[in-house]
Amino acid sequence: MDVLTFGESMVVFSPNINGPLRHVHSFSKSLGGAESNVATALAKLNHSAGWFSKVSDDEFGRFVISSIKAEGVDTSRVIIDKERPTGLLFKERYQRSNPNVYYYRKNSAASSLSPEDIDEEYIKQAKILHITGITPALSESCRRAVYRAIEIAKENKILVSFDPNIRLKLWTVDEARKILVDIASKADIVMPGLDEAELLLGLTNKDDVADFFLNKEAKIVAVKLGSEGCYIKDKKEGVKVAGYNVSDLIQDTAGAGDGFAAGFLAGYLEKLSLNEIGQYANGVGAMATLVQGDMEGYPYYDQLMEFIGKRQGVER
Amino acid sequence: MDVLTFGESMVVFSPNINGPLRHVHSFSKSLGGAESNVATALAKLNHSAGWFSKVSDDEFGRFVISSIKAEGVDTSRVIIDKERPTGLLFKERYQRSNPNVYYYRKNSAASSLSPEDIDEEYIKQAKILHITGITPALSESCRRAVYRAIEIAKENKILVSFDPNIRLKLWTVDEARKILVDIASKADIVMPGLDEAELLLGLTNKDDVADFFLNKEAKIVAVKLGSEGCYIKDKKEGVKVAGYNVSDLIQDTAGAGDGFAAGFLAGYLEKLSLNEIGQYANGVGAMATLVQGDMEGYPYYDQLMEFIGKRQGVER
Amino acid sequence: MDVLTFGESMVVFSPNINGPLRHVHSFSKSLGGAESNVATALAKLNHSAGWFSKVSDDEFGRFVISSIKAEGVDTSRVIIDKERPTGLLFKERYQRSNPNVYYYRKNSAASSLSPEDIDEEYIKQAKILHITGITPALSESCRRAVYRAIEIAKENKILVSFDPNIRLKLWTVDEARKILVDIASKADIVMPGLDEAELLLGLTNKDDVADFFLNKEAKIVAVKLGSEGCYIKDKKEGVKVAGYNVSDLIQDTAGAGDGFAAGFLAGYLEKLSLNEIGQYANGVGAMATLVQGDMEGYPYYDQLMEFIGKRQGVER
Amino acid sequence: MDVLTFGESMVVFSPNINGPLRHVHSFSKSLGGAESNVATALAKLNHSAGWFSKVSDDEFGRFVISSIKAEGVDTSRVIIDKERPTGLLFKERYQRSNPNVYYYRKNSAASSLSPEDIDEEYIKQAKILHITGITPALSESCRRAVYRAIEIAKENKILVSFDPNIRLKLWTVDEARKILVDIASKADIVMPGLDEAELLLGLTNKDDVADFFLNKEAKIVAVKLGSEGCYIKDKKEGVKVAGYNVSDLIQDTAGAGDGFAAGFLAGYLEKLSLNEIGQYANGVGAMATLVQGDMEGYPYYDQLMEFIGKRQGVER
Amino acid sequence: MDVLTFGESMVVFSPNINGPLRHVHSFSKSLGGAESNVATALAKLNHSAGWFSKVSDDEFGRFVISSIKAEGVDTSRVIIDKERPTGLLFKERYQRSNPNVYYYRKNSAASSLSPEDIDEEYIKQAKILHITGITPALSESCRRAVYRAIEIAKENKILVSFDPNIRLKLWTVDEARKILVDIASKADIVMPGLDEAELLLGLTNKDDVADFFLNKEAKIVAVKLGSEGCYIKDKKEGVKVAGYNVSDLIQDTAGAGDGFAAGFLAGYLEKLSLNEIGQYANGVGAMATLVQGDMEGYPYYDQLMEFIGKRQGVER
Amino acid sequence: MDVLTFGESMVVFSPNINGPLRHVHSFSKSLGGAESNVATALAKLNHSAGWFSKVSDDEFGRFVISSIKAEGVDTSRVIIDKERPTGLLFKERYQRSNPNVYYYRKNSAASSLSPEDIDEEYIKQAKILHITGITPALSESCRRAVYRAIEIAKENKILVSFDPNIRLKLWTVDEARKILVDIASKADIVMPGLDEAELLLGLTNKDDVADFFLNKEAKIVAVKLGSEGCYIKDKKEGVKVAGYNVSDLIQDTAGAGDGFAAGFLAGYLEKLSLNEIGQYANGVGAMATLVQGDMEGYPYYDQLMEFIGKRQGVER
Repeated sequence: MDVLTFGESMVVFSPNINGPLRHVHSFSKSLGGAESNVATALAKLNHSAGWFSKVSDDEFGRFVISSIKAEGVDTSRVIIDKERPTGLLFKERYQRSNPNVYYYRKNSAASSLSPEDIDEEYIKQAKILHITGITPALSESCRRAVYRAIEIAKENKILVSFDPNIRLKLWTVDEARKILVDIASKADIVMPGLDEAELLLGLTNKDDVADFFLNKEAKIVAVKLGSEGCYIKDKKEGVKVAGYNVSDLIQDTAGAGDGFAAGFLAGYLEKLSLNEIGQYANGVGAMATLVQGDMEGYPYYDQLMEFIGKRQGVER
Repeated sequence: MDVLTFGESMVVFSPNINGPLRHVHSFSKSLGGAESNVATALAKLNHSAGWFSKVSDDEFGRFVISSIKAEGVDTSRVIIDKERPTGLLFKERYQRSNPNVYYYRKNSAASSLSPEDIDEEYIKQAKILHITGITPALSESCRRAVYRAIEIAKENKILVSFDPNIRLKLWTVDEARKILVDIASKADIVMPGLDEAELLLGLTNKDDVADFFLNKEAKIVAVKLGSEGCYIKDKKEGVKVAGYNVSDLIQDTAGAGDGFAAGFLAGYLEKLSLNEIGQYANGVGAMATLVQGDMEGYPYYDQLMEFIGKRQGVER
Repeated sequence: MDVLTFGESMVVFSPNINGPLRHVHSFSKSLGGAESNVATALAKLNHSAGWFSKVSDDEFGRFVISSIKAEGVDTSRVIIDKERPTGLLFKERYQRSNPNVYYYRKNSAASSLSPEDIDEEYIKQAKILHITGITPALSESCRRAVYRAIEIAKENKILVSFDPNIRLKLWTVDEARKILVDIASKADIVMPGLDEAELLLGLTNKDDVADFFLNKEAKIVAVKLGSEGCYIKDKKEGVKVAGYNVSDLIQDTAGAGDGFAAGFLAGYLEKLSLNEIGQYANGVGAMATLVQGDMEGYPYYDQLMEFIGKRQGVER
Repeated sequence: MDVLTFGESMVVFSPNINGPLRHVHSFSKSLGGAESNVATALAKLNHSAGWFSKVSDDEFGRFVISSIKAEGVDTSRVIIDKERPTGLLFKERYQRSNPNVYYYRKNSAASSLSPEDIDEEYIKQAKILHITGITPALSESCRRAVYRAIEIAKENKILVSFDPNIRLKLWTVDEARKILVDIASKADIVMPGLDEAELLLGLTNKDDVADFFLNKEAKIVAVKLGSEGCYIKDKKEGVKVAGYNVSDLIQDTAGAGDGFAAGFLAGYLEKLSLNEIGQYANGVGAMATLVQGDMEGYPYYDQLMEFIGKRQGVER
Repeated sequence: MDVLTFGESMVVFSPNINGPLRHVHSFSKSLGGAESNVATALAKLNHSAGWFSKVSDDEFGRFVISSIKAEGVDTSRVIIDKERPTGLLFKERYQRSNPNVYYYRKNSAASSLSPEDIDEEYIKQAKILHITGITPALSESCRRAVYRAIEIAKENKILVSFDPNIRLKLWTVDEARKILVDIASKADIVMPGLDEAELLLGLTNKDDVADFFLNKEAKIVAVKLGSEGCYIKDKKEGVKVAGYNVSDLIQDTAGAGDGFAAGFLAGYLEKLSLNEIGQYANGVGAMATLVQGDMEGYPYYDQLMEFIGKRQGVER
Repeated sequence: MDVLTFGESMVVFSPNINGPLRHVHSFSKSLGGAESNVATALAKLNHSAGWFSKVSDDEFGRFVISSIKAEGVDTSRVIIDKERPTGLLFKERYQRSNPNVYYYRKNSAASSLSPEDIDEEYIKQAKILHITGITPALSESCRRAVYRAIEIAKENKILVSFDPNIRLKLWTVDEARKILVDIASKADIVMPGLDEAELLLGLTNKDDVADFFLNKEAKIVAVKLGSEGCYIKDKKEGVKVAGYNVSDLIQDTAGAGDGFAAGFLAGYLEKLSLNEIGQYANGVGAMATLVQGDMEGYPYYDQLMEFIGKRQGVER
């Protein structure tokens, strides 16, 4: 398996019209979850991916599993929780791209994940273990599960990939900073946004951010620069890769960062050049925004090739 | 104010098609809550009613308040909880009338209601305080709030009305039995279903059930007999009132019991005969089932008169 | 009560897709009405507001009342008309912001409002009586009702606020000019658009417009300048307040002018500076356009503060 | 042309869910109108039919014309009214089959039809002129238009067909009785329901009803007996034709009577036996009820043959 | 793998309202296909199942694969056809249970399946190869593919299961009879409906039907008796198993026969008694009809146990 | 009749949301077809138009006919094909304006059109015969039908109008070039896009393109220049007519080219100046893009006049 990841996926309810939810009469159901997004996007790019979590023993839990399995992700180790519900997320939209969210995820099945749920044999099958900063924010036991998974990966020479995904609805900045910097410092691959890096490290220069992690355990760092693309640096070189200009076509930015991570890992696994890795990452991230829904916009390999071939722009 | 009541109201999401929720793509939003149903049905019958609860400080909380206020119920004492969410309920339908439900109400705003939230001055304005057996099942603090409210009512000679509304998803039979029998024994008006009475008291005869409560503090007891109507007994007489046959027209039975309670209280407040009270109660209950949604089917006074005039049938 | 207003509210049917109504198969129901919009927006900003009108004795009439009551507006004096229907409005959309409208409001319940329907005691409870130029255009009796209400206000030292709201589908320019200039000349607060002022007075300079009314009975005049904001002048000073730039986010401009009026009256009642009053007015007006529907976009107080704090721009 | 008819067609708005319209958020648009229903059903049975009326000069008027033209009916003489609106009809559904209706048809374009709008040359092209009892109920000028049309038909030996279609929302029983009996007495073909006949004539026996009109100018009379079928009598014989039992399949009874009339006229034009005419009439009427919408259920010729072949039952 | 099957799955478009498709404006997409239904129902009952076919290289093809994969069926051998489209099926509904269908499946990807597409190694992994009578009706090459698959199964001692599934829209009775009797005669498990058996064999007695196949190569035969249940016979005994009475709850009978087959195979694989196998088969078939959609109603194991426990009725 | 045209019209299914069709659950039905678009747009501009084709003998075929008849186009010669289906087209939308399309039109009824279906008497009634380059791409028999129709037109001095409408999903560039240049060379009126002309002729200069056809049999040539408008040249002069800038309002570009052709033919028939003809053509083309759907946006005469009066811009 190329990439293994775990974390909470939720049932997402999106309003059929804009405006305050009070006046919305009809909602559409879809799926959301940073880690399953990454796994899905990787599977669509022909990389084997696995995802696990805990879900409820009801139709919402089954919806989560079947939606992710449908995309070709291995879900064989998902745990069914007989007691706790699957988390929910409601969107409220005033403008097209940046919805408010209402969480119903407290005490959810996924938030009860704990070190005991981490299956060493499963992790050992992966080349890369991908972690996001959402999971340690969910609960104390989730935090310990993350550390346990990283420990297993480290012991088995499996690469650890990390995307901070700071969610200030889930914890305070201080808590987030303390834990996320610690985790990121153990990771082989780190993919912070420049704004996230400032919040975590107080650094505003992309090279400083990359160097911070390269001086820890990172082999490679991707600093996300929003619509400007990204800056990728490893021990040898640093490359700025321009983003794809889709500003007039954006439907929904949710899932873009996860797409970036998946594109990055796909390129990295394919041993491409830093510039090509950046194009993959920027391309998947941009394509995610063209479609309503978190994961519906992720491209198949051919679609990605066409997209980055047609519109790409590189600068150094 | 004629009737004051309190308890949790939730945002209800109903599937647009039958079948497992996994395969349902679209949901409609409406309102549910036994106590607000009673208050709404009373207001539509021209009886002043008040309802309070705790709701979230967001659009779901505002939806609950504005939906109930829209029906003419006094909502001036609803408490906004800055921390906790409003409860949710999802329906899953295999047949028209009896949906499965998924609750997201644990640790909701309403479940944190406590004795401190009970406003003595407000309760003193009412002629009747209506209590359901759902509220004490929500949490320990809710249970104490119910007892505190009853205490205030008793001290101020305000009648206490009680509908058991047993919800075995919220507590065990043993817990329910212990608390609900205790509460019912303090009530002036008791409205159990015959099946509920059997569960609580082990009694299967309608007269025995009525007598049990009349030998406590009850002035009047209504035993609900499903489609057969009800049996009403006070210290002087017992009357069986036949139900209205709407079996071929039923859309959704949710809210029928609350409609029964509201019709009963309306008739009682209007000092009607036992038989007429039963017709009111049966009529509102039957009309609630003719329409999708919990409270949308409650009649205005004229509509109720037409309905019970046209279809009534009485036996003794 | 801070503000009392009256006038026709209609059931609005909006097409679910763009284009000629002939090809539209599905419509959504909502509420529209300039005066109830003003009352609603005020209530959401924590100012007590009352609205009355005549509505039909059916579900459309009840929809109008319950929708407005739901927002916290006093509707206790709405008159039920047993004979006449509630007015309807259909929208036809070619572009997002400016729909065509089809009225079915001729001989509606509201258009039969007459001086006899004006309750002196009710008007005397208000600090401000808000009038729009739509009501006198509906019928001869409505026109007389408006004059009667103004007369009562004047006798009782209640401020009269006036928004011309010229509707050339309802009367000719000549009729509109004659009546609206007369009414505006009696008002303490006048809020014309600059284009309306030109149509009514032939004046194109904002100071000339303001002075015209200040030389009549106006204490304060707000000249609306569209996306550029507004110009507010009282006996002491004139202030231009820049608008909020939301042009790329506009969903529906309906209700913006009413939001402006409500924001203005809220600021005026709170005795703010002219500049701050203008920010309130511009802010509520701008926020109304971000959401489909006439009144769904009006902000709560906190939302308005956030909006005008984040995006405001003032020039003098 | 086989049959010419005229009268008001309206835009129909049907609720997407059952219950009070106040709680219905979404409506579907379709077409309704007794006379255009008859013309449509005839055209689908391969009989040339023409219909005219007055409609508004907007998308609702164009919708009426294009919907009827789409079915193959000649609409070349429909008059566009530049001033008046097209009538509307809202349905409110508690049970499947019998909706409440809200009319917005007062002062509609069609209600201004007058004798001047009756084109003698057009009427002379028809074999049968079909009149319903709705048109004379719409306005005084409509009533005169009906009489003018009948006069022209009589002068030109064109058969007059008449369906009473009593609508007590439009006029009183006394008015209806006076005019409708007078019109029916001039008609060559009369198609009352037995309940209508009782209301108009005080007769409850089907033979008495038929004889009443046969003793006037009628050549043939069809007395509709609801689900039991019909009784057809001419100068030679009387035949009872059993109805088709579709009670368990009924979706919407609107349009059934018009379908009966069309089936009757089709069979009559094809010079079938009384029994066969009755099967046509009962068949089209029954098929109309199997589908939501007034005219969507009318059969093509082959469909009708299949239906009456498969399920027919005749008794004498 | 317990059961392997193959055959065409189509994208199904269901009308949102009843009536002629001409008047239907909106359609919902789902999945249909007899063989994938069987595989899906088996997977939900915890039996490993595989399904293959040919699908288009576009979103409709991917929809077919992902929908079936989502249910836990192995789809690893599905063939992507770069040229041909995925088949479509439109439903037209007059009554709830028996829709008309419009096929767009001629020259579809699946109809080009040929012996070359039959993977011997894959078939050898299965315990049972399930064949339906639809596949040989699709094309000459499909017919040969079916024979090739049976040949492989036979050579490898893999049981062949056969459900005739006669589709007279795809071929004539004579063609169907010739091929299907031939295939059925080679099968170890045969599951005809009694009406199908009559059409194929001219036999109307359930024992005669069973014996016919038991005298060929069948080890066990299940004769489906509609709502009455089924008759199962092997070399030792014959058992009639009563059906579950769900007539008042039926939403959509599509998929019921496939559910029967899956329930049968599940029970057979679990080595249950003939009576228990029949309960499984009747139960899954009945549950399929309670939900709109072909496969959405298939139960999980626990749901099936509850259903057949609660409602079962056995006679011999 | 002013214009006669023929060719395939299809039932169009449009997704209710953006994104890959796999994730789209609901589709809306409408009509598409280049030639019926042209006929419809002409009829709305008060020019008599006829259209014929072959359609299936089912509700999809009837939908095609009734939709086109509804717009006032003569459909009396449409042929019903008892065997073949009506073609379908599914749209997949990533951005608003340029959907992907999935065709189900192979072996459709329309693609079996052949010379025998060309009715000489019908063609002789027209002033202009309009041909598109889609029809000869559908099948060999369609190609021959096109040639036969042109032959009849030529023999009867009926003008031939031609719009290349290159569809590379239906044939190769080489096939298209060979046939379309040949047909265009016979036409009296040729309306290529500049990009089409380059593909067909290798010419990139608008004058060269016009001259190429003017040197064949063309009397007038319109070279479409996209949003820049068009260049119209006849034997006397060449005029560039600026387009209408609607770029910020575009909903759906489908049908724009057909609208251009209809506007052009309307202006030509009205013997307007080249500049005015160009304004008509540009205007109808632009208005088509403002509305979702292929033909819903075509204007009535008054709407076109208003549009080109309000926004026109001419340069030479």
